[in-house]
Amino acid sequence: MNLLKSFKICVIMFTLIILSNNTYAQITKDIKHDEALSVLLAAKKMAEKSNILVNIAVVDAGANLKAFIRMDESFIGSIDVAIKKAKTARYFNIDTGKLGELTQPGGIIYNIEHSNGGLITFPGGIPIKNKDGKIIGAIGVSGGTIDQDRAIATAGAASVIE
Amino acid sequence: MNLLKSFKICVIMFTLIILSNNTYAQITKDIKHDEALSVLLAAKKMAEKSNILVNIAVVDAGANLKAFIRMDESFIGSIDVAIKKAKTARYFNIDTGKLGELTQPGGIIYNIEHSNGGLITFPGGIPIKNKDGKIIGAIGVSGGTIDQDRAIATAGAASVIE
Amino acid sequence: MNLLKSFKICVIMFTLIILSNNTYAQITKDIKHDEALSVLLAAKKMAEKSNILVNIAVVDAGANLKAFIRMDESFIGSIDVAIKKAKTARYFNIDTGKLGELTQPGGIIYNIEHSNGGLITFPGGIPIKNKDGKIIGAIGVSGGTIDQDRAIATAGAASVIE
Amino acid sequence: MNLLKSFKICVIMFTLIILSNNTYAQITKDIKHDEALSVLLAAKKMAEKSNILVNIAVVDAGANLKAFIRMDESFIGSIDVAIKKAKTARYFNIDTGKLGELTQPGGIIYNIEHSNGGLITFPGGIPIKNKDGKIIGAIGVSGGTIDQDRAIATAGAASVIE
Repeated sequence: MNLLKSFKICVIMFTLIILSNNTYAQITKDIKHDEALSVLLAAKKMAEKSNILVNIAVVDAGANLKAFIRMDESFIGSIDVAIKKAKTARYFNIDTGKLGELTQPGGIIYNIEHSNGGLITFPGGIPIKNKDGKIIGAIGVSGGTIDQDRAIATAGAASVIE
Repeated sequence: MNLLKSFKICVIMFTLIILSNNTYAQITKDIKHDEALSVLLAAKKMAEKSNILVNIAVVDAGANLKAFIRMDESFIGSIDVAIKKAKTARYFNIDTGKLGELTQPGGIIYNIEHSNGGLITFPGGIPIKNKDGKIIGAIGVSGGTIDQDRAIATAGAASVIE
Repeated sequence: MNLLKSFKICVIMFTLIILSNNTYAQITKDIKHDEALSVLLAAKKMAEKSNILVNIAVVDAGANLKAFIRMDESFIGSIDVAIKKAKTARYFNIDTGKLGELTQPGGIIYNIEHSNGGLITFPGGIPIKNKDGKIIGAIGVSGGTIDQDRAIATAGAASVIE
Repeated sequence: MNLLKSFKICVIMFTLIILSNNTYAQITKDIKHDEALSVLLAAKKMAEKSNILVNIAVVDAGANLKAFIRMDESFIGSIDVAIKKAKTARYFNIDTGKLGELTQPGGIIYNIEHSNGGLITFPGGIPIKNKDGKIIGAIGVSGGTIDQDRAIATAGAASVIE
């Protein structure tokens, strides 16, 4: 094999790799498990710094559980609340706290919590967006006050593009 | 120091070790079945004294059912309510009535009842603490008025450290 | 008050008591909570004597939970199995092990376990009968081998007429 | 015996007490979140080395979800299977594959899968034990063949004492 032939092969393979990366980047809006793990750990780190005991759930673009961790001594009841917050945030691509403003008595989607096997519509669930602003999943946090949960979830979601 | 004195010290320290072992038995964070039964009977006794017909449930530190009794002629619908009150109290380490103050329309955790397969957030569920203040389980009472249920649950929970 | 008058009062009261007992015996086929508790303790005693860790459930004539206890260190998964054994035994007034002979592949009621929110059809569930042979409830035991569970359940059920 | 000797004995016994306290800290029967995360990552590492796409769930001593991760492109249906395997392994303190040998048609606990909201009784669920052999939780793996799932789960469970 001569030098030219080798060079051609290199060009083709390089092109394939570039294409594969581009193609890949275009066809997916789904959080990777390593990203989900990073989100989890970023949220956990913030919670630990503030001595808040939380459950943290990450769902993917399909609203299916991707990663989860429950801190020691955190509420057992927060397992399901955290997962439901993440799912709710992705089901409707919204901060769960914003959704809750619409589900109150007299609200336009009153008691939507009865759908989808149970929604959680108070703060703590946040969609996760990639650098292009595309939603690739969501994070749900439960165990602190609603303000703490929302802050931790927001930090976790933001970590994916840092 | 003579031999006798040394022996005495050994006895004292041996006793301390034994005591420390006993302590271990006491600080374990899970209610024992004999304790759960005593809690049940203490609550039942109070209910009978007041002619209140109730269902009484005790869950352990894992929020799993540990003991239960339904008094004759009490509401059938109170079986599940009592169990859910006990679980809710342990899920969030709180008097269920206190939780209910936060889940009202406009409340910070409105409609959290949709999580965990259904929560009960009115009075009657109380965490059970051991002598060291550690939560080892919870009791749920249903069948009387909410004030009666709460009083009976509180008495039951308190009986474990009497 | 003379002797005759006193005697008459005695006769009337005696008759009332008898009537009340008879009436009582006729109008109820439901296990009392004190009976359920005795059944529970009789089964627990036998289990402890044999060092078997079990969950014990008693349901009433309506197949609703009446009493329950879980021995320390027994299987968490046996909570639901014990309750379902008791319910299954009362749903079909049968030793659950006998029912299981009919639910095998090719059996006449194959996979009936899918009904009633889930049945358990192996040994350990036994109907509880009163002295007149009327079914007043059922007991379910789970945690030992199926032979141990059945023996403990049988002993518990029998204790109600001892 | 002289003073020095007595003092030595005191030191030894004091050490024993301290050790006994340490032992307590070690024998606590609940997996820590950092341990759960390590178990998750050990299992994930093995799966990645073998190019197997799995879901991995860890539950604590109370059979409640503690940590979870789903590898990219793994089966969506394996989320629930992995969680149920972990719960089943802790519910009955057993390798789920061993349990499955008993739940076949004609088996002694045929159709126990109908209890506890659904059990999974084929390989992939393994109890997690600490250094003292106490069960502190369980791991469930789903996505590969049952042999692969079991091997990964076993490796994950073993990592906690390495």
